[in-house]
Amino acid sequence: MTRAKIGATTWVIAEGYIPKGSTGPEPELTSHETFCVLNANDAPANVEVTIFFSDRDPVGPYRVQVPARRTKHVRFNDLTDPAPVPKATDYSCVIESDVPIVVQHTRLDSRQAANALMTTIAYPAGG
Amino acid sequence: MTRAKIGATTWVIAEGYIPKGSTGPEPELTSHETFCVLNANDAPANVEVTIFFSDRDPVGPYRVQVPARRTKHVRFNDLTDPAPVPKATDYSCVIESDVPIVVQHTRLDSRQAANALMTTIAYPAGG
Amino acid sequence: MTRAKIGATTWVIAEGYIPKGSTGPEPELTSHETFCVLNANDAPANVEVTIFFSDRDPVGPYRVQVPARRTKHVRFNDLTDPAPVPKATDYSCVIESDVPIVVQHTRLDSRQAANALMTTIAYPAGG
Amino acid sequence: MTRAKIGATTWVIAEGYIPKGSTGPEPELTSHETFCVLNANDAPANVEVTIFFSDRDPVGPYRVQVPARRTKHVRFNDLTDPAPVPKATDYSCVIESDVPIVVQHTRLDSRQAANALMTTIAYPAGG
Repeated sequence: MTRAKIGATTWVIAEGYIPKGSTGPEPELTSHETFCVLNANDAPANVEVTIFFSDRDPVGPYRVQVPARRTKHVRFNDLTDPAPVPKATDYSCVIESDVPIVVQHTRLDSRQAANALMTTIAYPAGG
Repeated sequence: MTRAKIGATTWVIAEGYIPKGSTGPEPELTSHETFCVLNANDAPANVEVTIFFSDRDPVGPYRVQVPARRTKHVRFNDLTDPAPVPKATDYSCVIESDVPIVVQHTRLDSRQAANALMTTIAYPAGG
Repeated sequence: MTRAKIGATTWVIAEGYIPKGSTGPEPELTSHETFCVLNANDAPANVEVTIFFSDRDPVGPYRVQVPARRTKHVRFNDLTDPAPVPKATDYSCVIESDVPIVVQHTRLDSRQAANALMTTIAYPAGG
Repeated sequence: MTRAKIGATTWVIAEGYIPKGSTGPEPELTSHETFCVLNANDAPANVEVTIFFSDRDPVGPYRVQVPARRTKHVRFNDLTDPAPVPKATDYSCVIESDVPIVVQHTRLDSRQAANALMTTIAYPAGG
């Protein structure tokens, strides 16, 4: 296994939800949801994210580039083009890359006085 | 990989438990357990959930339809037919679909003053 | 896929640790670590757990039977034979079954005023 | 499946971040991030960790040996050679071993008054 082959090209996060409201200093303790990408390749990864909702058509692609041998931790809160991701709304996403990457999903919820965390490796759907 | 093939048709959540009692505004901070489905297909997903217990026969199927290119985040708390899922009771579930889907499991526990969260991609058991 | 084939026969939890100390009513909010088994088969699952430590030989097997079409959520806190699992001690475990099962790992940590939770599907190592 | 074959030789954690600041007694409630290794083999595992950042070249290898039939829970906070892992900084890591191992990722965040936890089995990338 060479590092250029680490990961998969399609990943899924089925549980998306950005909590509305936060307690504590910004931005580190702002309620947020993140997808973290590792690109261990020697070439940049061109990543496209499609957001699925419960009651309307998917939105996307959101485009993110991760340079060679770099990680990028992307807050869904910060996605704006083609449209911001609404808060307090159920969503899912499919993340596609032109080279193999690894994706992990994390949420920090600070609506109440002490923050809660959750994480999982996303689902590698192919490639 | 076309999106119509994203996922698997059988999924398992081994750790099921709806905490009894909540702190904070309802329904968003009510203690709950959720399975989140992404159906990236162009056809609806007909999903059947079977609940397994420690001391009695399985109950189900609970039927949920997820439209094409939609997500549905289903609280076990809200399942009623054929029977509500009891609180403060150990359970597991098998989730079966007629088309490939992706399933993620999340619990929010607000029994104490600040909520706790946990999540994992469910176990893809086949299909 | 018939339900008798759901899962794997060898599972691993690499991160084991029972926090010492608890806040809140027992037993539901006692700090604990659990492995949750689903046996979707029509025959009982004979499960053997081996605990690995950082500084001494493995201990086991701990034997647990999960009846047909049942789940069992087992607290490591409650294992006693051949020896209790020490608190505040790093461990890992290998869980082996004579029929396919699914295993999920959960910790509830209530050392501080509001409980924390974490979960993951265990690693299916074979079978 | 013999235990000597349990696991994989390459693992990835895409979401790395050591929170800065802690509440509660040290070291058990110090904010930290851990990778937990199970080596179920009859031979020691020579493990190499490479840390990837968002804005500079990878750092490593960090070398860790896990004896035969032992677990080791390694805090990224404690890695010092070739360089400490900076706090409050996004990173990812690739973990490589000369024999099969299992890796699980956990974070304890005690920046606020009650600690938060998250865990996931890392992504087995090959071997």
